[in-house]
Amino acid sequence: MRGVIMESAGVVRVEERDDPRIIEPTDAVIRITTTCICGSDLWPYRGVVPVHHQVMGHEYLGVVEQIGSAVTTLHVGDHVVGSFCISDNTCEICRAGYQSRCVHGEFVSQHIGTQAEKARIPYADGTLVAMPGKPDADLIPSLMATSDVLGTGWFGAVAAGVGKGSSVAVVGDGAVGLMAVLAAKQLGAERIIAMSRHPERQQLAREYGATDIVEERGDAGAERIKQMTGGLGVQCAVEAVGTEQSLMQAVDATRPGGHVGFVGVAHEGVALPMDKMFAAEVHLFGGPAPVRRFLPELIQLVWDRKINPGKVFDLTLPLERAAEGYKAMDERTAIKVLLTL
Amino acid sequence: MRGVIMESAGVVRVEERDDPRIIEPTDAVIRITTTCICGSDLWPYRGVVPVHHQVMGHEYLGVVEQIGSAVTTLHVGDHVVGSFCISDNTCEICRAGYQSRCVHGEFVSQHIGTQAEKARIPYADGTLVAMPGKPDADLIPSLMATSDVLGTGWFGAVAAGVGKGSSVAVVGDGAVGLMAVLAAKQLGAERIIAMSRHPERQQLAREYGATDIVEERGDAGAERIKQMTGGLGVQCAVEAVGTEQSLMQAVDATRPGGHVGFVGVAHEGVALPMDKMFAAEVHLFGGPAPVRRFLPELIQLVWDRKINPGKVFDLTLPLERAAEGYKAMDERTAIKVLLTL
Repeated sequence: MRGVIMESAGVVRVEERDDPRIIEPTDAVIRITTTCICGSDLWPYRGVVPVHHQVMGHEYLGVVEQIGSAVTTLHVGDHVVGSFCISDNTCEICRAGYQSRCVHGEFVSQHIGTQAEKARIPYADGTLVAMPGKPDADLIPSLMATSDVLGTGWFGAVAAGVGKGSSVAVVGDGAVGLMAVLAAKQLGAERIIAMSRHPERQQLAREYGATDIVEERGDAGAERIKQMTGGLGVQCAVEAVGTEQSLMQAVDATRPGGHVGFVGVAHEGVALPMDKMFAAEVHLFGGPAPVRRFLPELIQLVWDRKINPGKVFDLTLPLERAAEGYKAMDERTAIKVLLTL
Repeated sequence: MRGVIMESAGVVRVEERDDPRIIEPTDAVIRITTTCICGSDLWPYRGVVPVHHQVMGHEYLGVVEQIGSAVTTLHVGDHVVGSFCISDNTCEICRAGYQSRCVHGEFVSQHIGTQAEKARIPYADGTLVAMPGKPDADLIPSLMATSDVLGTGWFGAVAAGVGKGSSVAVVGDGAVGLMAVLAAKQLGAERIIAMSRHPERQQLAREYGATDIVEERGDAGAERIKQMTGGLGVQCAVEAVGTEQSLMQAVDATRPGGHVGFVGVAHEGVALPMDKMFAAEVHLFGGPAPVRRFLPELIQLVWDRKINPGKVFDLTLPLERAAEGYKAMDERTAIKVLLTL
């Protein structure tokens, strides 16, 4: 089968590799119908994290081709969405809602790589969710979004404690930040402040429910948000970048007792000054999103056409042209790239 | 009146200074009957934070001597406990339960200093809580504890999400850590693991409800706790030290999705590695404890003799001998020192 390999930083190829097969009785093999490129794929692309001949991709829609003997909830031919983390969905951690840290967990990006024609998915019952049927073509981008970017933005909003009537700031106007805006709206937020300097992203943020846009960054951005919220700061902030500056921008924009949800992938060297955290007195929570927790609800919202997260895909390419997609996201000429098969 | 002054690092004196008087109509002036020395007083004592001719003390029991014209809930002669943070208890932040970050807030330690015969307490209605009557002498140490150290340990346990059936680790065996053990027990925790190497503190931790003691520190300590909790880690950890090592010990001992409450005062330079926090996926919350939120309940628990937090005071000295008390706590020959007037 064909699949994307990142040979080294900035070098993306589509190569032939072995077809996957069932190994464990809890496995499924799926034929991938749609996949995409994630903002986190840019870290190795840019050389921020080391990479050598790495399979790529962790977001995927597919059709079940084979199931192991222990798989009970899926059938051959089912149209499925999968999470970017493998989870058994039965362990104590999964049952608490943290499927991204399942005791049997692994990242799909590590050894599976779904920018490919097929994939073996371990713990298929706990990782894949069947759609109600064969999806209409116009729903594909939005269903694709549920697999990671929407689930991650949604988790950011949940981690930030967003609820009915909340005031929310979103730091980061990439796909995840935009999805956090959508999630905040769905979760009942009253005021949603998107922090963005890009006119097209501001426009999309407004479509997804942003009530205000703040262009200032850093201390000036946080100060602006305080002014807009009676001097107190927002109740909830979602951080979707992963740098110390963006984290502190979120913390400083949040009132004492408020919540910061962080879903930007923080790399080695990003450190939070704890004297400031002690003084700020805000709740902090984040990490890899337990997308599996939210998938059934998010798939249904898309299926019922109540949300349209797929708009974050502003470039569609066939899998064979994946390298162009990486380049476009790296150069920020595209927010997020859909890959078709 | 007489009051403690820290002239410079390590130099503590009791000096004459002006009697306080009512300035604002929301003020009360109280005669202090009992005060004490806080672990956080050791930071300037040890030169970790700069100090010059600073009034000291922020924990206090007293009797109301005068009230301003706008004070409504207190009367002259009332026996009161006060919080170490001034709070109006009516602003949006206070109403959300974060009185330590009241919009009119200030630290009692900054300009008031309750290691003294009297104090002016701003926003008296929002800061002081009247006891049901004149306290019995044997209740004094426990009532004193409610003013900060118990309230802080209690907040640590609440911030760590401790509830019925929780598994809890407490990092730090100082007074606050011991109070967090007591709080965890009261809040219904099933398993309470105290991390301590000091036999007397281990003993007190057990009296307060610790079910297990772990002597290992750092990675070894966290690993030991994971072994004790089915490989997962505890649901809740309270950090009561304030260093990066102790924070990471708490984080590493906690399962994904669990909660770390931090009440150890973190100073400049203490930084949390966010790549590890992202991977750990634990909730983090802490800061100066909103003791005022808990005071009515804690005072009643002491009054009804349901808890005995006063045991953390293992040395009692008259105010005039405060310097000896600082020395004893600095040298760890005393856990916490009560000062009588």
